[in-house]
Amino acid sequence: MLPPALLLVVAVGAALLLAFRPPLPALAARPIVAAAGGKPAPTEAAATARWLAAQNTWGVLSTISSDLSGAPFGNVVSYSDGVPGESHGIPYFYLTTLDPTARDALEDERTSFTLSEFPLGTCGKIDPENPTCAKLTLTGKLKLIDPQSSEADLAKEALFTKHPEMEGWPKNHHFQIFKLEIKNIFLIDWFGGPKPISPTEYLEYEKNRALLKSS
Amino acid sequence: MLPPALLLVVAVGAALLLAFRPPLPALAARPIVAAAGGKPAPTEAAATARWLAAQNTWGVLSTISSDLSGAPFGNVVSYSDGVPGESHGIPYFYLTTLDPTARDALEDERTSFTLSEFPLGTCGKIDPENPTCAKLTLTGKLKLIDPQSSEADLAKEALFTKHPEMEGWPKNHHFQIFKLEIKNIFLIDWFGGPKPISPTEYLEYEKNRALLKSS
Repeated sequence: MLPPALLLVVAVGAALLLAFRPPLPALAARPIVAAAGGKPAPTEAAATARWLAAQNTWGVLSTISSDLSGAPFGNVVSYSDGVPGESHGIPYFYLTTLDPTARDALEDERTSFTLSEFPLGTCGKIDPENPTCAKLTLTGKLKLIDPQSSEADLAKEALFTKHPEMEGWPKNHHFQIFKLEIKNIFLIDWFGGPKPISPTEYLEYEKNRALLKSS
Repeated sequence: MLPPALLLVVAVGAALLLAFRPPLPALAARPIVAAAGGKPAPTEAAATARWLAAQNTWGVLSTISSDLSGAPFGNVVSYSDGVPGESHGIPYFYLTTLDPTARDALEDERTSFTLSEFPLGTCGKIDPENPTCAKLTLTGKLKLIDPQSSEADLAKEALFTKHPEMEGWPKNHHFQIFKLEIKNIFLIDWFGGPKPISPTEYLEYEKNRALLKSS
């Protein structure tokens, strides 16, 4: 039997090991897209689209401009599709009607949201317009989220973890949460034109991948 | 008088100095925006807009989508507003009708082109949606350029110097040169809403600046 002093050292050591061990992998709750980190293969269209949405923090939101007689109007916005490491593919935005984009969407919901791989730095010396430097356009309806809903709470957490300064933005600017209800997906990630991905394939990417793995 | 050996040393030294001296500044031919390099002050709205256009190499071109029943459609594209160091503010594009953006523009010219300061790295830790991280939307008409015109030659030089790989893009994709004829400028570079800049103020920025300096 160990002497009491040594026992104490062993007990303290074990407690420390338990306290500082890395967290157990929670694969069920953690989407594989974000966990994998690197860019998916070009053949993996849904994975690539989800990776672009998870990795970027800003993009261009295009609306039908009411100020400019119906011209398309692209605006730089920040977004989040989930807390870091748990992206779900739906982009949430924090917008004010002081800005034309939110005003436009409240009059005409038709909107597209465009992301590029280029600012992620993974295109290397490839030109931003080269089809192997991936680009994603999600088109659909920009919807205002009820601020009292549980979805608003989740969206706020998703936005404020990726964009901490948003939480301190002026209350009198009346920022509101919007989401893009995705109807159409345009992805270019290789030669040969856009890849056909349905909103369901995109949004249920983790579920489908889990089914494939278990079959 | 110096001995011949020392004279030779002095002569060679002078020749080397002449050969490696920095080139004389050619201010007249070189727009001040690009020469200044750094971001203009937020009070300098036209300068900031021209700086964003000169420094970026890609942006999002939004058209009225014919494939998606008139929804706005943003697409990632490369562009150039002049050869490096000689930007003129008009964005030129190299597009193919294999891509929806060029097809849309040939049916409905109304287009906007959106740029962000964020990918330039000068926003630091400021959020991409923060108004002090500048954003520019140029709205107008996307026009096809006659390939036989002198403007097409200038545009090609502007594009191919900033995007060298474009010159080798497949001939059978029939890339064509387009330009944005600017009708409206939306610039956010500080708190307090968009800055009013007319297309003339934007396009004639160097001329006006030269006039101010000489008055």
